[in-house]
Amino acid sequence: MLSNKINLNEKFSKFTKHWSPRVIAEMNDYQFKIAKIKGEFVWHDHKDTDETFIVMEGEMSIKFRDGEIKLCKGEMFVVPKGVEHKPCADKECKILVIEPRGVINTGETVGKFTMTEDVWI
Amino acid sequence: MLSNKINLNEKFSKFTKHWSPRVIAEMNDYQFKIAKIKGEFVWHDHKDTDETFIVMEGEMSIKFRDGEIKLCKGEMFVVPKGVEHKPCADKECKILVIEPRGVINTGETVGKFTMTEDVWI
Repeated sequence: MLSNKINLNEKFSKFTKHWSPRVIAEMNDYQFKIAKIKGEFVWHDHKDTDETFIVMEGEMSIKFRDGEIKLCKGEMFVVPKGVEHKPCADKECKILVIEPRGVINTGETVGKFTMTEDVWI
Repeated sequence: MLSNKINLNEKFSKFTKHWSPRVIAEMNDYQFKIAKIKGEFVWHDHKDTDETFIVMEGEMSIKFRDGEIKLCKGEMFVVPKGVEHKPCADKECKILVIEPRGVINTGETVGKFTMTEDVWI
């Protein structure tokens, strides 16, 4: 049991790459992933699932086709399934993402940011 | 969209009762709940689901029949389904709990702590 305790800061300290989510835990068929983000991601959606963002440090924005929200540390947002969104961050921001196992980070917008396999940390 | 942004501290400021989780968001059929805890909860398990605890402020422990883990701010733990556990906190601790909609906080250990209906905040 003890070995499964997760310290988020300790996990964040283990990688530097932006837009490269790392899986830190699973709950049933859902995954908790941490990511460091900076700059602009790609427009995408997830046809079959909502996706939750929690800002752990810094600030990010999530652009939608009809607006934008800004999230600071301690704020969260659930992007509804099928809604196009584009995460952005002017400065490096640390986030926790929760979504079902198997969700591709860029949805169907395959490109340089696409991660097709889970990377655990 | 903008109205769905969730500030955890703002949500925590809206209630004081201990061991009384409030739903703040849903992602598919999962719920995000916040709780203020202090003292000892009851031994219980959830037969059909894992349950995730994230400490937002303070310290808590989760007792198991074969040990105990201590979680500080920024630490999380996924209690596997079917595993008996007993959350405790010497001082008030603020936590975020993630689990499927419909999970009863005390499992089958019905008593004074049992919440049978969702309370949104």
